[in-house]
Amino acid sequence: MNITLEQAEKIIAEAKSKSTALDTKMNIAVVDAGANLVAFARMDGAWLGSLDIAIKKAKTARFFDMNTGAIGELSQPGGSLYNIEHSNNGLITFPGGVLIKDAEGTIIGAIGVSGSSVENDHAVAEAGASAI
Amino acid sequence: MNITLEQAEKIIAEAKSKSTALDTKMNIAVVDAGANLVAFARMDGAWLGSLDIAIKKAKTARFFDMNTGAIGELSQPGGSLYNIEHSNNGLITFPGGVLIKDAEGTIIGAIGVSGSSVENDHAVAEAGASAI
Amino acid sequence: MNITLEQAEKIIAEAKSKSTALDTKMNIAVVDAGANLVAFARMDGAWLGSLDIAIKKAKTARFFDMNTGAIGELSQPGGSLYNIEHSNNGLITFPGGVLIKDAEGTIIGAIGVSGSSVENDHAVAEAGASAI
Amino acid sequence: MNITLEQAEKIIAEAKSKSTALDTKMNIAVVDAGANLVAFARMDGAWLGSLDIAIKKAKTARFFDMNTGAIGELSQPGGSLYNIEHSNNGLITFPGGVLIKDAEGTIIGAIGVSGSSVENDHAVAEAGASAI
Repeated sequence: MNITLEQAEKIIAEAKSKSTALDTKMNIAVVDAGANLVAFARMDGAWLGSLDIAIKKAKTARFFDMNTGAIGELSQPGGSLYNIEHSNNGLITFPGGVLIKDAEGTIIGAIGVSGSSVENDHAVAEAGASAI
Repeated sequence: MNITLEQAEKIIAEAKSKSTALDTKMNIAVVDAGANLVAFARMDGAWLGSLDIAIKKAKTARFFDMNTGAIGELSQPGGSLYNIEHSNNGLITFPGGVLIKDAEGTIIGAIGVSGSSVENDHAVAEAGASAI
Repeated sequence: MNITLEQAEKIIAEAKSKSTALDTKMNIAVVDAGANLVAFARMDGAWLGSLDIAIKKAKTARFFDMNTGAIGELSQPGGSLYNIEHSNNGLITFPGGVLIKDAEGTIIGAIGVSGSSVENDHAVAEAGASAI
Repeated sequence: MNITLEQAEKIIAEAKSKSTALDTKMNIAVVDAGANLVAFARMDGAWLGSLDIAIKKAKTARFFDMNTGAIGELSQPGGSLYNIEHSNNGLITFPGGVLIKDAEGTIIGAIGVSGSSVENDHAVAEAGASAI
């Protein structure tokens, strides 16, 4: 199973809505089960540098099938996955990347959000992932 | 002046509609005046390899403020811009990248489309660019 | 549907057998439906430079759902896809990349072979793809 | 002396067997004395992001002729090799990369394993390296 564009667009719409509710401006990326981009939106005035971060967060979540923040806890100095970020042409391992699952719980893709605090980024990603 | 996300989404919707009318499956990318991605959509079943090409076409059009096909005529062996594709982390210089202008004719971004013949790619990009 | 490792290993075994029959030494790569590597083998004495080519051929075939040689016919100087090789971190568009389909004809991956003439590369790739 | 494909395949078979015994799903890469890929296998359901990590672990071990974890102890903040991971298009310096030696103790290649905890990754790499 793989995410459809219709599902990805519903997810982005919900993420935009949550971002507006939080008074933030986000870059929002959705990748499929193969970690390839399906849909993307950069809200007006969102940080340019967050464009790449949003895409890398979505890919990172799918690469390891967990939220990005969970990887970041292990990649700290002295941690078991220190500097894992150098793999896969660059990972982003702080919060804002969340898995997308279908009704049966199968992973069908991931969403990555960047543009505000990591707490807000994660909240917007969660809101998006919950849209389907 | 720069393209807004709302405009980019209108452009993508129109491009998707044209793509469906042509019975094709496209990757569609919209970049702003700074050649940075604003919105993207990969239609279900569209070629994976066209993801990167669609984005590169949009960037290429804005990099030189002309349709991608016009650059490709100059980059042939013996041409004045031979192998310009090696610059900017890779250009795509065949048709499918088209400038987006506002009502006054100011360039505010570009659209890149990939997934079918270059004729269809260009037609879908033109339809998208004409949406605003 | 996606290729399994068991299927990929059967394909590589068949490709190695064909390569030996042709008195060649090949690099053989198999990617899944997401164009990600599943299995790889470099036969003793095979060209080192063919390692990357074999992987790129497999990816290229899946990126556009056709044999690599078909793309190469369109990417020549003056062709409609001239210099498409600059996309996707480098394509290889001469023969040796072949799609892998299941019994129902669904594309589940691709094989890329490099190490001899393009005729031999293609013959080995075909032999591998026919193993399942 | 250099590793043969037959040896590399025996190593991968042993590593898969150990991985199954540990109830894990691994990406397994074997490089030769020149740090170039010889054989690779991604077990069904293994993390996509571990593909690149397994290959980088194998290369890293051979690049410096020591297990990857030993390098990671020196690359921490304040350490003598701080951020060495930036070299060679990206190193991975946590456990899971192990040297492969022949009967005389000569280094003939390296194995890299990724897909579980670093303890499991290392155990599977050790099992593989001990197969010859």
